[in-house]
Amino acid sequence: MTFTFQPIGFVRSPHKNTEQVPKGLGAKHDTEGVIEVLPEYELGLTDIEGFSHLFIIWVFDRSQKSELLGTPPCDDRSHGVFATRSPFRPNPIALTVLELLSRDGRFLRVRGVDMLDGTPVLDIKPYLSTIAEQSLRRGWLAEAETRKTPPASH
Amino acid sequence: MTFTFQPIGFVRSPHKNTEQVPKGLGAKHDTEGVIEVLPEYELGLTDIEGFSHLFIIWVFDRSQKSELLGTPPCDDRSHGVFATRSPFRPNPIALTVLELLSRDGRFLRVRGVDMLDGTPVLDIKPYLSTIAEQSLRRGWLAEAETRKTPPASH
Repeated sequence: MTFTFQPIGFVRSPHKNTEQVPKGLGAKHDTEGVIEVLPEYELGLTDIEGFSHLFIIWVFDRSQKSELLGTPPCDDRSHGVFATRSPFRPNPIALTVLELLSRDGRFLRVRGVDMLDGTPVLDIKPYLSTIAEQSLRRGWLAEAETRKTPPASH
Repeated sequence: MTFTFQPIGFVRSPHKNTEQVPKGLGAKHDTEGVIEVLPEYELGLTDIEGFSHLFIIWVFDRSQKSELLGTPPCDDRSHGVFATRSPFRPNPIALTVLELLSRDGRFLRVRGVDMLDGTPVLDIKPYLSTIAEQSLRRGWLAEAETRKTPPASH
């Protein structure tokens, strides 16, 4: 059983290689870029400008391997790939929440870009609802943050 | 340019057909189900039990068409497909946030299932951070809710 998809657009990003993408604990993702939707799909963007945030589903198209356990940049311990955002996944699919700044026809100006320039986009969806911060548990990531934060001195 | 993916698992859901999936404004998504990850990917679940919520990327495998404009169940006006969660998309990829209740080996018991039984899953990612409710604009959906809510009487 296989599923085959084609890009509906591409990311225009200032990041030309993976070293330029902020990574690890406290990484800031406020980079601006553009999602360029292909002309044949522009009609599908109707009314998207009413949303402040979008889910972008895209492809780690320059990822060359897959591993089930890996050590993310923000930790020194390994974790299962499905408990991380690693690009080295069985299916190299990525998900980013972007802030939609403006729309000009088939071009979406966005903030929060962590993709490389030229990255293929498979889908765009509106961000409709949010999980309350206080009901969120963040497993190994919260532990890694705690380990790396020096205790407050009194 | 095409990308081909294979399922890493399948959804076990009480919903056997689309009519059974709650839809529209105020639809409750508290259905429990199981994500059954294939044995060869079980190692990739290591440490996932520390997260309260997961992103599930899956395939609308029973969706038979694609349309750029459509009228969602919660509105009487049409919108662009990328501004909706319609199953009739250029790439029939779906995204659901599920609450992780427990893990038993390669079986994840989850709440919030809006998939049909047997749905193929392409990827699982941890839900790491949230957009604050007050910074979220929800476009046509907020308008549709306003139109359908009778004004409060005093």
